[in-house]
Amino acid sequence: MKKGSKFGTHRVIEPKGILPQPAKVISNDMQIFDNEILIDVQTLNIDSASFTQIKEQAGGDEAKIKEIMLGIVKSFGKHKNPVTGSGGMLIGTVAEIGPALEGKTDLKVGDKIATLVSLSLTPLVIEEILEIRIDIDQVDIKGKAILFESGIYAKIPTDIPENLALSVLDVAGAPAQTAKLVKPGDTVLVIGGAGKSGMLCLYEAKKRAGVTGKVICLQHSDSARDRIMDAHLADHYITADATDAVDVLGKVEAVTNGEMCDIVINCVNVENTEMSSILATKDDGLVYFFSMATSFTKAALGAEGVGKDVQMIVGNGYTKGHAEITLQIMRESETLRKIYEDLYA
Amino acid sequence: MKKGSKFGTHRVIEPKGILPQPAKVISNDMQIFDNEILIDVQTLNIDSASFTQIKEQAGGDEAKIKEIMLGIVKSFGKHKNPVTGSGGMLIGTVAEIGPALEGKTDLKVGDKIATLVSLSLTPLVIEEILEIRIDIDQVDIKGKAILFESGIYAKIPTDIPENLALSVLDVAGAPAQTAKLVKPGDTVLVIGGAGKSGMLCLYEAKKRAGVTGKVICLQHSDSARDRIMDAHLADHYITADATDAVDVLGKVEAVTNGEMCDIVINCVNVENTEMSSILATKDDGLVYFFSMATSFTKAALGAEGVGKDVQMIVGNGYTKGHAEITLQIMRESETLRKIYEDLYA
Repeated sequence: MKKGSKFGTHRVIEPKGILPQPAKVISNDMQIFDNEILIDVQTLNIDSASFTQIKEQAGGDEAKIKEIMLGIVKSFGKHKNPVTGSGGMLIGTVAEIGPALEGKTDLKVGDKIATLVSLSLTPLVIEEILEIRIDIDQVDIKGKAILFESGIYAKIPTDIPENLALSVLDVAGAPAQTAKLVKPGDTVLVIGGAGKSGMLCLYEAKKRAGVTGKVICLQHSDSARDRIMDAHLADHYITADATDAVDVLGKVEAVTNGEMCDIVINCVNVENTEMSSILATKDDGLVYFFSMATSFTKAALGAEGVGKDVQMIVGNGYTKGHAEITLQIMRESETLRKIYEDLYA
Repeated sequence: MKKGSKFGTHRVIEPKGILPQPAKVISNDMQIFDNEILIDVQTLNIDSASFTQIKEQAGGDEAKIKEIMLGIVKSFGKHKNPVTGSGGMLIGTVAEIGPALEGKTDLKVGDKIATLVSLSLTPLVIEEILEIRIDIDQVDIKGKAILFESGIYAKIPTDIPENLALSVLDVAGAPAQTAKLVKPGDTVLVIGGAGKSGMLCLYEAKKRAGVTGKVICLQHSDSARDRIMDAHLADHYITADATDAVDVLGKVEAVTNGEMCDIVINCVNVENTEMSSILATKDDGLVYFFSMATSFTKAALGAEGVGKDVQMIVGNGYTKGHAEITLQIMRESETLRKIYEDLYA
């Protein structure tokens, strides 16, 4: 059996010598190396920005969506959307464990897991697409995937339905980072707060900011207002187009008495929302970009352009304990669990 | 005289209602609004990523560089490189101050200033390109520009030569952020440490990390080794290609006894260096991306892909006192001042 590198560089075909994520093409040969784990895949949870792009390209047509997805995997050996650069995650069952991982992993054959590394670096074979759940970005397939030694995963808990677990684990980084950042008394704005990652961030923000804090949900339409306010996820609900920085500025000024926010968390997967995030933040405040549609240069030059001394953080999908923190929300809050079951599972 | 908005939105032509930086086209009509400052421009300092792209597109030909630059300003009303999205800054003399700024600004007509907002949002007219200093990204022109009310600037000091001041002010954000981040005892890696922003970062890192810290310069060629080590800017000098994450990982492991770095500052204006930065960082460490060639998704997914719990910061070109901090380095260190005079002024 061939020896593999921790990070999976042995799978990279083009260009040679780099890591699997930035690589264009990787090998999806399903013969495992000594430190790899083979997974029988059940469901792909496509990254929201990626799936939106695929749906648009397909004009909403399911057969065309299948064709695009199969094409991506065939060309690149992984489901890395060539337009958005993003992946997603998967759920499946451990089929084989490389001998070099013995004593190093707590997994055994037959365990049901969600991989928490991106599909943009995961060797994948799709034999057949069984079902597309178009509204929740999930695709059931018959296929196999490889998890590298450095790859992170979560065992699917038995007390939470699988699809629900997959849905929330996909965005687990966001609420876990929120939990780390928000302090008592903070004013926190979540842009795209009524979305899948947004509501989890609101929940953690409310919990950490406490009674002396203020949590604001910003969403592009009014339709989620009752859901958010009835669930006590936010103190204020702003309806605004997040790409309209000037409008957002005015509305956030209004609900914060002109003081603006200590922390702004951007969870909205559309382009050109960097400036809204920056203008809504206090000087010396912090912007946390979780949206994969964020442009580095727009953020960097945008802050400089308006002379704003804010710290801007690139959302890291991984932080220690992120799976546990996020699954715990589903146990803690019956209201939120019900919302996620209705909307995303 | 027409009333302008603080952020310059009144200048935006396409698309309407957004801020000047993300806008495609802005008005470069040199009739000022009531809160604007008119500047007689002397020198443009083109952003390094932008100028590299322009030079490549022109195949190094000066006439072609002029043509490209004039074309950008003619099309967009500002020098925002349509490929890199970045700008640069300028030096010039205050020609007119809008009446609404009276008592609000410390500037007067005739003051020589450097604008510290990006050229990517600055209304600009180039009447003539007088001289291109191709190795230091500086272009002398006859022309005019507009500074908005929110626009930041620095008065050119009298004890530092103009071109030198312009060169270091252009990258003032990087050393100022370094000064804020680095603590005594930290191990700090500066990728592209021998470059214009890199050396300033090394200087601040050495000063803050102190005798118990360790500062490492990583550069693609060995040619700057003597310059860096003779000036005591670093404790270690690594020669490596920053796009080769696997090689960088090994070399940083070697000089840190496998402990890796508390803080990695990326100053190298080439693509695909995100993974080197991430892998060189300790768990719970911090990566500061100052390079405008940084890809948001490559950074976000890269860290997740290798399961690294690191904080990644989008380099903000502005932080309070950044001009003062950076000009002070030129006063404090005769060695560094001499290096910058030789290389960049």
